[in-house]
Amino acid sequence: MTTAKAYAAQSKTDALAPFTFERRALRSDDVALDILYCGVCHSDLHQARNDWHNSMYPVVPGHEIIGRVTAIGSDVTGIAVGDLAAIGCMVDSCMECGECHDDLEQYCAKGSTLTYNGKDRRDGSLTFGGYSDHIVARDHFVIKLPEGLDPERAAPLLCAGITTYSPLKRWNVGPGTRVAVAGLGGLGHMGVKLAVGLGAEVTVLTTSPSKAADATALGAHHVLITTDADAMKAATRSFDMVLDTIPVAHDVGPYLRLLAPRGVHVIVGAIDMLPQIHSGMLLGGQKSLAGSAIGGIAETAEMLAFCAEKNILPDTETIAIQDINHAYERMERSDVKYRFVIDMASLKGAEA
Amino acid sequence: MTTAKAYAAQSKTDALAPFTFERRALRSDDVALDILYCGVCHSDLHQARNDWHNSMYPVVPGHEIIGRVTAIGSDVTGIAVGDLAAIGCMVDSCMECGECHDDLEQYCAKGSTLTYNGKDRRDGSLTFGGYSDHIVARDHFVIKLPEGLDPERAAPLLCAGITTYSPLKRWNVGPGTRVAVAGLGGLGHMGVKLAVGLGAEVTVLTTSPSKAADATALGAHHVLITTDADAMKAATRSFDMVLDTIPVAHDVGPYLRLLAPRGVHVIVGAIDMLPQIHSGMLLGGQKSLAGSAIGGIAETAEMLAFCAEKNILPDTETIAIQDINHAYERMERSDVKYRFVIDMASLKGAEA
Repeated sequence: MTTAKAYAAQSKTDALAPFTFERRALRSDDVALDILYCGVCHSDLHQARNDWHNSMYPVVPGHEIIGRVTAIGSDVTGIAVGDLAAIGCMVDSCMECGECHDDLEQYCAKGSTLTYNGKDRRDGSLTFGGYSDHIVARDHFVIKLPEGLDPERAAPLLCAGITTYSPLKRWNVGPGTRVAVAGLGGLGHMGVKLAVGLGAEVTVLTTSPSKAADATALGAHHVLITTDADAMKAATRSFDMVLDTIPVAHDVGPYLRLLAPRGVHVIVGAIDMLPQIHSGMLLGGQKSLAGSAIGGIAETAEMLAFCAEKNILPDTETIAIQDINHAYERMERSDVKYRFVIDMASLKGAEA
Repeated sequence: MTTAKAYAAQSKTDALAPFTFERRALRSDDVALDILYCGVCHSDLHQARNDWHNSMYPVVPGHEIIGRVTAIGSDVTGIAVGDLAAIGCMVDSCMECGECHDDLEQYCAKGSTLTYNGKDRRDGSLTFGGYSDHIVARDHFVIKLPEGLDPERAAPLLCAGITTYSPLKRWNVGPGTRVAVAGLGGLGHMGVKLAVGLGAEVTVLTTSPSKAADATALGAHHVLITTDADAMKAATRSFDMVLDTIPVAHDVGPYLRLLAPRGVHVIVGAIDMLPQIHSGMLLGGQKSLAGSAIGGIAETAEMLAFCAEKNILPDTETIAIQDINHAYERMERSDVKYRFVIDMASLKGAEA
């Protein structure tokens, strides 16, 4: 057991505050990391505040983790002390079901173990995430960082990156594909960069004309203002995919109209009841309304390699852990371009 | 112009009754058929009664047409006088848009011309369907019947057959695929036969234990009674596709739970507002809720050839045109296994 310094929410009304706890002793298939950087995901805030009614306190958020390997268990191969490595939203799964065998651990039939607010499969203890100085996790879920990825900016790839990469790959986005990205936050801005990197023709859908310059700066080829009825009508049937990163429940009807026949609208942001839709919007063009959640470990490693090769990185703003509550406030009003990353050196130097 | 004998609804409250009208003179790209058989689709009843609020009277229903070629226009090739031929739900489309070029005429960007209750693209006249003694249609939309298909029983393939075949092919159903068919009417029974023919493992989902024997007789490998909570729970995540032929709006949530990760639920029956769903049901497994409408002409020809090769035919009950109103009553209470086919000889011999 090793004592970890961290930041935690002790209840849904508490701000995050210093917290110490014990990380487990290294198992034979474990890898230990000193955490260098941790991205700040909107889910962190939702869990800290129990917005999804499933929080187990204390909550130590953080599932976009970059660190350096400090120890490996006796059975661990393929990663060594001193390597840079990454941990995303999962730290374990059953590894025996069909989904796990198919590299879809995120859809494990028995449920994957989340990096925080989860329960360890072997001892039942609560999992604590990346807002801490170190972490211990099962080797399969620790991914060696490819050469050439800036570790500070890479952190958000572990959630925002893979969450957008997985559906782009699943629905065969590539050269010639017309992708519309709805929402331009942490997920959306990665969706733009990754779809552009895959060779697609990318349009940002936004209510805000003020975001047009931002979209272009991210590499988008076009911007469609969704409040412009004429522009929306002109764009009818013009996309193969709408990648929907809007984080709140919303009517997908207007977006389904933008899909070409056989197109797919993929929800990756909103986890909520959806307003009603008319089935005719799907039948009239063999269209699909789909959802997607993060990605498997092999796909995450593939995504990191793709980003290293294409030099694709999130736009980030680095903060100290002491600023996390202020960062949450700013995140709530979308005042970040586009992802906060916590420099964990700030925690190591502080009183906990 | 040639005078056609037919049955038509003159208003939403009128029963179908004898009606005569003029079919157009043959254009250079037209094919004329003497109609031998016409299937009776639930859509026929909906249109006759203006259930979809778009009926144009008189309505001469019928879009599952088998006939014999009696004349061809000067530019027509590939079909000859004397051939058996079929016409389905469409008799024209723009033939210029991307969808038409991709053999997806049913999703024509300008709208396909429906076999009945449509407007002819050239002269604007109302289209009249297969409850008539002959028909004239653009050659591209007239499909030569493959050898070996019983023309009487083949008629329902033109709507019920292609409507279920198209999504099965689109989502790659074949050996190893686990398909659940919801609803066991005209569409559902074809869905079972076609999915079995494609090599899938097929389960019928039904509320009625009494339909188990019927399902097995159609070739289904399993039956799942959807009102049996334990059986439904045990079947969680066990299908790659749910082919949903239920003809009325219904909650798809219980079916989404039956899908394995990456599975697809395809609605082909209900054209209505759907009850709300929670996006988590899609995200938790990268699942899709899709729709599909009939199929293109090339795919319809492919389906007919497949059915001829595999000896797949609908289960039909042949009626005289004079019995059509009674057949509608029986169809409304699902008292048909599984499709009525009108023998058009009954019309030719009658006073019109």
